[in-house]
Amino acid sequence: MSSDTIEVRFHPAGVTAKAAAGINLSEAAHLAEVTISTLCGGKGMCGKCQVLVRSGAVSEVTAAEKKLLTEAQLSSGVRLACQTRALGDVEVEVTEQQQVVVRKDLSEAMFREFELSPRVKRLELSLAPPALEDQRSDLLRLWEGADLQHCDCRALLSVLQKLPAVLRDGQFQVVVTMMDDLLVEVETLAEAKAALGAAVDIGTTTIVAYLMNLTTGELEATSSTLNPQTVHGADIISRIEYGRDEPGGLATLQAEVVGAINSLISSALADIGASIEQLYEITVVGNTAMHHLLLGLDPQYIAQAPYIPVASQPLTLYASDLGINTHAGGQVFALPIVAGFVGADSVGVMTAADICKRGPTLALDIGTNGEVMVWSGERLLCASTAAGPAFEGAKISQGMYAAPGAISKVDLADGDLHIGTIDDEPARGICGSALFDITAMLLVTGALGVSGRLAESDAGLPASIAARMSGEGNGRKVLLADAEQAHNGQSVYLTQRDIREIQLAKGAVRAGVEILLEEAGISVDDLEGVLLAGAFGNHIRPESAVRMGILPEVPVEKIKGVGNAAGVGGVMALCSEQERALACELAAVAEHIELASSANFQNKFMEAMLFA
Amino acid sequence: MSSDTIEVRFHPAGVTAKAAAGINLSEAAHLAEVTISTLCGGKGMCGKCQVLVRSGAVSEVTAAEKKLLTEAQLSSGVRLACQTRALGDVEVEVTEQQQVVVRKDLSEAMFREFELSPRVKRLELSLAPPALEDQRSDLLRLWEGADLQHCDCRALLSVLQKLPAVLRDGQFQVVVTMMDDLLVEVETLAEAKAALGAAVDIGTTTIVAYLMNLTTGELEATSSTLNPQTVHGADIISRIEYGRDEPGGLATLQAEVVGAINSLISSALADIGASIEQLYEITVVGNTAMHHLLLGLDPQYIAQAPYIPVASQPLTLYASDLGINTHAGGQVFALPIVAGFVGADSVGVMTAADICKRGPTLALDIGTNGEVMVWSGERLLCASTAAGPAFEGAKISQGMYAAPGAISKVDLADGDLHIGTIDDEPARGICGSALFDITAMLLVTGALGVSGRLAESDAGLPASIAARMSGEGNGRKVLLADAEQAHNGQSVYLTQRDIREIQLAKGAVRAGVEILLEEAGISVDDLEGVLLAGAFGNHIRPESAVRMGILPEVPVEKIKGVGNAAGVGGVMALCSEQERALACELAAVAEHIELASSANFQNKFMEAMLFA
Repeated sequence: MSSDTIEVRFHPAGVTAKAAAGINLSEAAHLAEVTISTLCGGKGMCGKCQVLVRSGAVSEVTAAEKKLLTEAQLSSGVRLACQTRALGDVEVEVTEQQQVVVRKDLSEAMFREFELSPRVKRLELSLAPPALEDQRSDLLRLWEGADLQHCDCRALLSVLQKLPAVLRDGQFQVVVTMMDDLLVEVETLAEAKAALGAAVDIGTTTIVAYLMNLTTGELEATSSTLNPQTVHGADIISRIEYGRDEPGGLATLQAEVVGAINSLISSALADIGASIEQLYEITVVGNTAMHHLLLGLDPQYIAQAPYIPVASQPLTLYASDLGINTHAGGQVFALPIVAGFVGADSVGVMTAADICKRGPTLALDIGTNGEVMVWSGERLLCASTAAGPAFEGAKISQGMYAAPGAISKVDLADGDLHIGTIDDEPARGICGSALFDITAMLLVTGALGVSGRLAESDAGLPASIAARMSGEGNGRKVLLADAEQAHNGQSVYLTQRDIREIQLAKGAVRAGVEILLEEAGISVDDLEGVLLAGAFGNHIRPESAVRMGILPEVPVEKIKGVGNAAGVGGVMALCSEQERALACELAAVAEHIELASSANFQNKFMEAMLFA
Repeated sequence: MSSDTIEVRFHPAGVTAKAAAGINLSEAAHLAEVTISTLCGGKGMCGKCQVLVRSGAVSEVTAAEKKLLTEAQLSSGVRLACQTRALGDVEVEVTEQQQVVVRKDLSEAMFREFELSPRVKRLELSLAPPALEDQRSDLLRLWEGADLQHCDCRALLSVLQKLPAVLRDGQFQVVVTMMDDLLVEVETLAEAKAALGAAVDIGTTTIVAYLMNLTTGELEATSSTLNPQTVHGADIISRIEYGRDEPGGLATLQAEVVGAINSLISSALADIGASIEQLYEITVVGNTAMHHLLLGLDPQYIAQAPYIPVASQPLTLYASDLGINTHAGGQVFALPIVAGFVGADSVGVMTAADICKRGPTLALDIGTNGEVMVWSGERLLCASTAAGPAFEGAKISQGMYAAPGAISKVDLADGDLHIGTIDDEPARGICGSALFDITAMLLVTGALGVSGRLAESDAGLPASIAARMSGEGNGRKVLLADAEQAHNGQSVYLTQRDIREIQLAKGAVRAGVEILLEEAGISVDDLEGVLLAGAFGNHIRPESAVRMGILPEVPVEKIKGVGNAAGVGGVMALCSEQERALACELAAVAEHIELASSANFQNKFMEAMLFA
């Protein structure tokens, strides 16, 4: 390779383009088969091809960029791909809202049945027409026809305004839509459309929307996207700091997540040919920081002792107040949070699991943070660990999301590693679930020591494993996919530094597990089950999780992957008032354990980092 | 008078300017001492001096008017006074929103005590600051501090957004404002301002706003204005037709009443130096049509059999949805209506009177329509009569509102009529209360016959009365104030035609009274009391009301003027949840009697028109 050849690496796809220095980032993306939107064909006019330059030398900001990007964007490294040339090796984050293939299959995660009884209720009414002997007002006629006499009468003004026309057009045969005691829609029987709702899971990294038919309870469509706030940092703390320190930062963060939700919903609706006026309610789960940023609530006090959120209770708000597009009367229900960083996502997991109906249970939700929940049979304890986004592929040198080509599992057979990729495509990088496998396999073969150091010599290693090791000290690494197995001939490695990241993350989670079990007064043997939730919870192999030590020693048959249980909790709260009530109850009874203030957290953490 | 001298009569002030043909209407108004607003000094630029030309020849529409007025306005006769010249005798209505002096003294009408317990509640909280041992969220801390644990937690998003800053600025000593279970405001103890509310009485002719301090229950300010919808017709039916037939008519009517309410409120707030952010709730009373037009509800079905309103139940709406300026979370409570034209104004009267706690009672609310209510001791019956606006001075040739100079009472002494005017100013016209007196006095002296015809000869009349009579047939009239007693030397008369209007109005009301008493199964002698409500209810002399026959023969000591009881009902509903509940209960138990479909209405009406 000549010295002029440089590498442009694109995140989150985890692919690299090799080209001559000076290549335009749009062209590099094209070479690497990364899609970057454009409307103007690369003329610097539409502003659609925004990317975040993470590191490396790039060309100066052009006049077109100054026009289309804010100063805040430019200073945070946002550029237009079509206007920017790579002058050396560059790391680029594709930040604009694209559909990301995320392996989140709701149906497999929805692991218990529940009754369909959404808050959004539809009633088909056949009303007696008015007469001199029956001069009830249109609304009273409808109200009594729907047997709602005992409710306070509340109606959207826009519905009242069209009520006389709709009743008479429909010859008093109508379909009404109620939310609690609020009349939100009236349609003629002939023109009534299905009522829809969406459950949105706002992850620090990924946002997923599940579009549900509220009459049938069926999942109509799923859409997901990168959380656009990622440009301000992959972890929660850097978002909170951005909101606190940047002028208008909070508003920017809110606008970003609202924009992402709007585009997810509009794409899901388009998938099934439905209109925004059919969407009546949205439930939201997310960690405390994501919850606060969606609502425009200042999260700064969560990040400093004594770690106080603005609001923890379940909140019902008008979608329009948040700028979220729905039916004119659409509402947003934000599931409650527990305390500190233990947010509505954990409440979603506990709800989906109906955790207090089980025997003693440990549940882990592994996303950008790691949430730990322990039900002792008497007490429900929760904690949030600062695991960071390693398990989502961030901070891992060739980490990537669970997109096609991601190494998602690793087996050990015949003394060697055997990789499996998503869709069996040539390997492009490593996604979360494989990190558990690789760590476990390296430990089993002796290539990785208790302290987390890769073996410096080949002595005692299986030959095939030894052949995969190269480099020295902190530069030591393990080959996972060679040029033949990999996309574009770019071999995939796990490095010593990557292992340090895994160690920190698993240490944080495991320390949380230990402290909660201790506080709950139960031992590992008391556990009846262990639930592994998270985007790739289904894909983690229990034996790997135990071997690499994120879980204590439990029989693998007790461990169950439950997928995106947080999202399932949001779906349940959307589709069932009972489940919504359960979520509120669980949030109220859950006890929050503040790990940072736990006397022996540091000890436990140090211990837990070891691969003992 | 030369043939070039013409008369320009201004309503509602009831004054006339005499001038040479061709006089500009602004100048004529100046001559007649009528104030017409202008910002541009009569240059046709500001569009402020809008008037409605009711009849008579005027100059062509100018280019300035085409620019400043809509086609709809022009075709309904709206002109700019500064641009329009009177070519002959002209009748002009001054339509722009001016403060009208209306004799509505709330304190004298507030004729029973009630408990101050407004829906808008303020709580002074002294909260424990957060600690590691007490990690409750800001909202939960506040919620539990306010002892609201058992409520569903609802809060305005804007309040949540400022909550952490206010709590910490105020060192956790704060004042919160709640409406039901909704948190609508949080202020530091040091900066908390008084909570205000307004009760608005939307009359067909006049709109009055009472600004109340919700903490002390005191009336802080009163303001009133002409209902700007008057340009589309003085009576209810012409407004309904305008809304039905004119493109955008409903929106225009709504915008007019909303604009009037906004300016009343802003003027009342300015009177006491308060800000709009202190105004949390507005209660509204008005007849069914005014109620519907405020809410933008189509009233057309009230005006045709079977006379169905859109909504009759009590309605709670966000002020912002109506375009009414309040605190960001301000709400509007529209009192319920009974049915047909029996609206929230009647409910207000019945609430103010607590009518079902009384013995058998007849209540009349005399405004543009006449509402009749009968409480038999067992049943509560209501009807609306098409009395029309005669008693408010409309359709009476020299009729006017109760402004200074209006003849408001007439006595008979020494065989002659003696007039009294408001503020003892020279007479300008006749207002409602005096019509009852004059009719009664003319009947007593024999100048007016049973059939409603003025005596054609002087035979048998007291000499002084005879001297007041002039003209023949339908041109016959009675002098009330001669040139010396009258403003600008313009004598005031009551004409034969005026008496026909009075006859129709009193006939409609009295027929309603008779039908309701009959339906209730009680006789006049059973009545324990008669309540006369309405803008001038206090000013009607009971003996005159009985003598002219709008009331049946009841001992005058049973008759009580109760002023603007509808407005008082609105104030009570604003200041007391119990009274609000009473209003809702009364509206629900009241039975509506549809006079138009009553078999013997025509007979009763014909009989009741006679001055028997």
